[in-house]
Amino acid sequence: MADSPETDDDTLGSVHEREALRRIFPRLPESSVTVIGPGDDAAVLAAPDGRYVVTTDMMVHGPDFRWGWSAPYDLGWKAAATNLSDIAAMGAVPTALVVAIAAPATTRVTELEAIADGLREACAELAPGCGVVGGDLSVSATFTIAVTAFGDLEGRAPVLRSGARPGDVVAVSGPLGAAGVGLRLLFEAGVDAQGRPSPERAAELRRDHAEVVLAQLRPHPPISDGPLAARAGATAMLDLSDGLALDARRVAEASGVAIDIDSSALGADPLAALASGEDHSLLAVFAPGTELPGGFRHIGSVVEGTGVLVDGRPYDELGGWDPYVGWDGRSG
Amino acid sequence: MADSPETDDDTLGSVHEREALRRIFPRLPESSVTVIGPGDDAAVLAAPDGRYVVTTDMMVHGPDFRWGWSAPYDLGWKAAATNLSDIAAMGAVPTALVVAIAAPATTRVTELEAIADGLREACAELAPGCGVVGGDLSVSATFTIAVTAFGDLEGRAPVLRSGARPGDVVAVSGPLGAAGVGLRLLFEAGVDAQGRPSPERAAELRRDHAEVVLAQLRPHPPISDGPLAARAGATAMLDLSDGLALDARRVAEASGVAIDIDSSALGADPLAALASGEDHSLLAVFAPGTELPGGFRHIGSVVEGTGVLVDGRPYDELGGWDPYVGWDGRSG
Repeated sequence: MADSPETDDDTLGSVHEREALRRIFPRLPESSVTVIGPGDDAAVLAAPDGRYVVTTDMMVHGPDFRWGWSAPYDLGWKAAATNLSDIAAMGAVPTALVVAIAAPATTRVTELEAIADGLREACAELAPGCGVVGGDLSVSATFTIAVTAFGDLEGRAPVLRSGARPGDVVAVSGPLGAAGVGLRLLFEAGVDAQGRPSPERAAELRRDHAEVVLAQLRPHPPISDGPLAARAGATAMLDLSDGLALDARRVAEASGVAIDIDSSALGADPLAALASGEDHSLLAVFAPGTELPGGFRHIGSVVEGTGVLVDGRPYDELGGWDPYVGWDGRSG
Repeated sequence: MADSPETDDDTLGSVHEREALRRIFPRLPESSVTVIGPGDDAAVLAAPDGRYVVTTDMMVHGPDFRWGWSAPYDLGWKAAATNLSDIAAMGAVPTALVVAIAAPATTRVTELEAIADGLREACAELAPGCGVVGGDLSVSATFTIAVTAFGDLEGRAPVLRSGARPGDVVAVSGPLGAAGVGLRLLFEAGVDAQGRPSPERAAELRRDHAEVVLAQLRPHPPISDGPLAARAGATAMLDLSDGLALDARRVAEASGVAIDIDSSALGADPLAALASGEDHSLLAVFAPGTELPGGFRHIGSVVEGTGVLVDGRPYDELGGWDPYVGWDGRSG
């Protein structure tokens, strides 16, 4: 098959795995820490300071994304961006990804190429120097992409969730609530009469509500602000994946403090900001008087106590996203 | 739900992700290189020599395993073993895994616990000190497990596929062909009248043909022989995942040599040894006169030329496993 001319109709079922990989690899970004790249049993990466940061996240067709709404390019972009954000939330600079994809045999190779393009352009825009150093390609009834990301702490201590102290200031970089508002809009208005994801309706929403819909489908987390926060001495930090209320509670619990959020800092829809997940913005805590770096803005303060407060009053709503509760089975 | 008593009937759909993780985590092995373990946005691992080895591999229900044949424990074991083998094939000592699982909401938590048990016991037996440092749990219509494994080169150069030189000896540690014979047996005799995987028939095969069936379902690759080969100066090495003929050809191509295999060293069924995949044994090449370390045994020699020879004659059969060719859709 490797000798046949390429066509847009080639699928994973019609070409060999090796041929599919041959077409995908040149589109993937190169990593600045590669010692030995793809092609052997494993890659070898440099860890200049003797440590490396690791995170993994899987996106599954149905619960995590739907082809009716996400183009293959969007999926590649989001799979990179959400993992890069977890690396940045440790205060590290993302250096490399490995990517495992399981796809139906009917998947066109051009769709895999578009996923590779999304991975490449997300790395180039959000984390220059970060590249794909390895991967795996399998066949599956359910499209699945698993990304493992690596980062370099550049000699600094990692910024954990547990270092917040009373008196510290709480800041956020990136949008609050937009990705969740975008997802709700897609579920409400991006579907056909039977409730199935509709590419046509989604295209209209993408045009008319670009900010929130793209925040959901192609997020731009503020990756470079993670290392900036670490350099500015952040005492705690995390990636806002499950909504501000739930994620702030995680920092409060890990640090043994309470976090008091100023609702006036949460924009036009504070409830959405508190409850909506998938923003992948960064929540960081700084010593009082710190000049906030990069795109960070003040949204509250650390106080004695437990849990989350809003404007000084206990706030017990959790919000957030649990895949086993949130999945309604609409998987088109 | 976290306050309800645990029962064997709990499923991913009936408990929250957090509760499922709370039950799984204590069963996972700890890693000797952990600086920051699970629970934050990412893990931090030590890389004492300033480099680390990385590989990733995904197993999908249907093409890669079938619940009719594999118990959850077997799946966890095999997912660990196959990744550990890729690390060992670089000459590195496996140090850590991250594990992402996507499972149907009907999956029982006890099944996930058994997968964790398999991961733990495979690490303990094959690569002591290697642990699980992070993961992800998602819901999916198709059970999928993606493992990314890490290793430490202990200051040595990685052993690539490209270093074999004419005159070197070719050696193997571990079985040749057994896993493929076991898989063929399962497909031929481990099915019901409709051709679907049958747990009852598989149990009989497991009892009556334990060696080959367990080589397929719960392989024991010779992980510690990877670093031993590197210390003995191996010039090339790889993990035999796609059959000796295809994998030896990869070494020959990468090294610009030919590999001549002695059929009398391949056991009772040389054709199965050449063509069958998934043994995850190690093929290593050593300078002439090297005392073969660990479990390595002589199977051939490196000569001038290209490709693979058997008993001096060109051998152009490929064998091996391509998931898009080999999958016949039987997924029960």
